[in-house]
Amino acid sequence: MIGRKLTARLVRDGALNGKPLTRLTLVDIVAPARPEFGGTVETVAADLTARGAAEKLIAAKPDTIFHLAGVVSGEAETDFEKGYLVNLDGTRDLLEAIRKTKDYKPKVVFSSSIAVYGAPIPPEGIPDDFHLTPLTSYGAQKAASELLLADYHRREFLDGIGLRLPTICVRPGKPNKAASGFFSGIIREPLAGVEAMLPVSDGVRHTHASPRSAVGFLLHAAALTRQQLGNRINLAMPGVSCTVGEQIAALGRVAGPATVARIKRVPDEQVIRIVTGWPERMTAQRALSLGFKAETDFEDIVRAHIEDELGGKVS
Amino acid sequence: MIGRKLTARLVRDGALNGKPLTRLTLVDIVAPARPEFGGTVETVAADLTARGAAEKLIAAKPDTIFHLAGVVSGEAETDFEKGYLVNLDGTRDLLEAIRKTKDYKPKVVFSSSIAVYGAPIPPEGIPDDFHLTPLTSYGAQKAASELLLADYHRREFLDGIGLRLPTICVRPGKPNKAASGFFSGIIREPLAGVEAMLPVSDGVRHTHASPRSAVGFLLHAAALTRQQLGNRINLAMPGVSCTVGEQIAALGRVAGPATVARIKRVPDEQVIRIVTGWPERMTAQRALSLGFKAETDFEDIVRAHIEDELGGKVS
Repeated sequence: MIGRKLTARLVRDGALNGKPLTRLTLVDIVAPARPEFGGTVETVAADLTARGAAEKLIAAKPDTIFHLAGVVSGEAETDFEKGYLVNLDGTRDLLEAIRKTKDYKPKVVFSSSIAVYGAPIPPEGIPDDFHLTPLTSYGAQKAASELLLADYHRREFLDGIGLRLPTICVRPGKPNKAASGFFSGIIREPLAGVEAMLPVSDGVRHTHASPRSAVGFLLHAAALTRQQLGNRINLAMPGVSCTVGEQIAALGRVAGPATVARIKRVPDEQVIRIVTGWPERMTAQRALSLGFKAETDFEDIVRAHIEDELGGKVS
Repeated sequence: MIGRKLTARLVRDGALNGKPLTRLTLVDIVAPARPEFGGTVETVAADLTARGAAEKLIAAKPDTIFHLAGVVSGEAETDFEKGYLVNLDGTRDLLEAIRKTKDYKPKVVFSSSIAVYGAPIPPEGIPDDFHLTPLTSYGAQKAASELLLADYHRREFLDGIGLRLPTICVRPGKPNKAASGFFSGIIREPLAGVEAMLPVSDGVRHTHASPRSAVGFLLHAAALTRQQLGNRINLAMPGVSCTVGEQIAALGRVAGPATVARIKRVPDEQVIRIVTGWPERMTAQRALSLGFKAETDFEDIVRAHIEDELGGKVS
């Protein structure tokens, strides 16, 4: 989803880091849709974990690589081997392919996750120097990948940056089975005139950034230099920290009480248990001082969804 | 060195975690010396990175595995591929072999290192929840291995514990080329009647534990339960934090001024640069509260060396 939105933005801008964009290579496990673009576009269906796949993908020596590929949290927990194969070995294969390519030092923007943190965490917010104690295999794979990326960066095989993305909200499309799905669902479905289930209490706090902000993070990261970053290249991203109750209140202010009335409270013990281990908020001080920007109010997140996905209209 | 001392201690105790020790398998890249021991002893020369080596080693399902193997810091920095192969893949192979063995859940005690930390670090001491930002490939490999160990522990494939060992001082034997070598050299050589070079200023602070304490950490770790540890199984170990000047003063108090006079100050810019990035002290609060014990005064470290290595005599 973020890859698709990033592509749309790149095509619209026609530039990256102030330089005209001439060539786009889009890679996914199934061939991505081909965007309308003046320059060269290649769409590739590839399994990054296949032997030699990474070498082939970087043969044209792209200046910037956005590495967003991965198996999601739930699947990495269910399928232990697949999670390590895709999320850790797949990342390492890419880094190794870059290291082994002569006269090549691309910018690598890696999407990590706040799943690298695990409870107990400081309620006043996770500082930038807080340790990584993931409570999922997904989080462990992302955290280990961050360490590799930082070492390859330090050794100057590449210019790396890792972004610990907060939960992306409002995620467009159909409801999915992710434990975090309801954070988007309770906004997206009511705005579309559909009922949504809320499995946790109104007091649950979490941090959110819109898809628009996530794309902004990736582009801003691509522009940061080695001099600006130093060796500590893995950064918690900013976002709006708010409770579910505050999410709902913001929805009400933007779309009215009839929309809010479509949220049904149906407690789900399993979701409650999973969500309890998640980080509630990050201070993200370094990211903010490096110029990363997110929404500051959940109303802006609701409005971004209405503008970007609903053509400005609410059902 | 620690493996040899751990073996000697295990053989002397004849027990581990209060249970009689019946079988010892000693593994190194060259076959270790065979200790005098009443039970079964197997000495194995094996390359842990060879395909199937880990499976073979754990075929007899040992209750406790002390994983101390690794390529040292300097070599991992010089030989990038070898460092990752031995320190990361070697560890992962062992964890995978354990995961794939049916009805088997051993205790795995892993020797990590304070090299997982990197400057800048809080001068008042690194707290237990401080992030890992290694400035060597060795440190990155140890930190990534810690994450894997914690995930395999959380998934209950094994009972893991990782120990971030401080610098072991006084390291017995010949001087080596490690940048940290002088911390031991300025004590060991003068006590043996030999001159020693000091490449840094007297104000350099570092944390030390004796080989005796390091063995104590490993045995104490083997006895800790899953209930005591929870999910945060990677722990900074305690030690004596002192300056080089304080080390020398302690040596003087134990062995007199003639011994101290054998230390020659020969500044070495490269060593100074490397040492500047190292952590000066850890608070090690969790380790202390879990009962790990180290010396509290550098004099005790000097005396431990005289007792354990010099038969109580000073040249």
